[in-house]
Amino acid sequence: GEKSAETFVGVGVDQELISAVPSHNPTFVARNFTDAEAAYCHAQPSPASSFAARWAGKEAVFKSLGVKSKGAAASLRDIEILNDPVTGAPTVTLHGDAQVQAAAKGVNKILISLSHSEVCPKYLYFCDTVN
Amino acid sequence: GEKSAETFVGVGVDQELISAVPSHNPTFVARNFTDAEAAYCHAQPSPASSFAARWAGKEAVFKSLGVKSKGAAASLRDIEILNDPVTGAPTVTLHGDAQVQAAAKGVNKILISLSHSEVCPKYLYFCDTVN
Amino acid sequence: GEKSAETFVGVGVDQELISAVPSHNPTFVARNFTDAEAAYCHAQPSPASSFAARWAGKEAVFKSLGVKSKGAAASLRDIEILNDPVTGAPTVTLHGDAQVQAAAKGVNKILISLSHSEVCPKYLYFCDTVN
Repeated sequence: GEKSAETFVGVGVDQELISAVPSHNPTFVARNFTDAEAAYCHAQPSPASSFAARWAGKEAVFKSLGVKSKGAAASLRDIEILNDPVTGAPTVTLHGDAQVQAAAKGVNKILISLSHSEVCPKYLYFCDTVN
Repeated sequence: GEKSAETFVGVGVDQELISAVPSHNPTFVARNFTDAEAAYCHAQPSPASSFAARWAGKEAVFKSLGVKSKGAAASLRDIEILNDPVTGAPTVTLHGDAQVQAAAKGVNKILISLSHSEVCPKYLYFCDTVN
Repeated sequence: GEKSAETFVGVGVDQELISAVPSHNPTFVARNFTDAEAAYCHAQPSPASSFAARWAGKEAVFKSLGVKSKGAAASLRDIEILNDPVTGAPTVTLHGDAQVQAAAKGVNKILISLSHSEVCPKYLYFCDTVN
């Protein structure tokens, strides 16, 4: 079928140690994760690993948008990463400010993948943004 | 010249420890690698490293296709990674089921890159799929 | 607005240990970094980290171009990585041979991202090339 032209806007990569993501802190979780994300992570075999994966993913998405950071204390709740119920693949939904900034750049597609290292326990997410 | 519109379908990343890929097991190799891949890897200075690199690459390609996994025991033989004879760059060819699933998603181009870490001996492959 | 069709040319990933990049060697720096890159790196809190990040980025860009390597001793000065003054995001400018090779492949956009691992101190850059 007919395909519309896409232009390639950004790319982002991040890696985080599980131990560096304070997912045992309810204030940190409420500030940075949606209810659906938190429910998903708490239901996994290792919630700390799942929170760390999502945290790294949020950082990678943020980098891929190419916008100015508000600093380390900025909330990343507006970048939501859930898993496709059929394939299990991570998917990204933007809300609030992140959605506004992405729209201003014409971003309408964000692709993401993750990998977990066994030897250095960290998650690596990377993502591409397309408009 | 005239370019056809491309849309961006998926992205995949994976990292594997060399020690986690049982390339000394002929059954594992025959199940997951084509004859050309196995011949290439056995001809390299470190066959175990070459097999691990291809294994991680196959996993990354699989993720980028965004299809449901058949589980850890599924064969990855249908995702073939060889090196361009001129540039040495890794290239991907799909066969069988992987080819069918990619065609169903309209994928007609897969790009891949690899990196080897000296300190944590593992290979990282990542890839993008385009249609 | 109207968008021109883009095609996706290449992808590159690299990771480097800070200790593996001899940024204390002025000959190495002059051979591989532009004056603007060297000035930027020397002004950072950890020049060695900044040089290593750029080195890994140059390697990733090189891989993404899909051209034949001139060997480990080849200069990477023609691939310049600086930071956007507003967002801080890394940007790529090609010069000399790299510019010629990219133009021959129709590359007119290079996207890059970086990540620093705390536990295994290395930088990971990856990049996509688009024409």
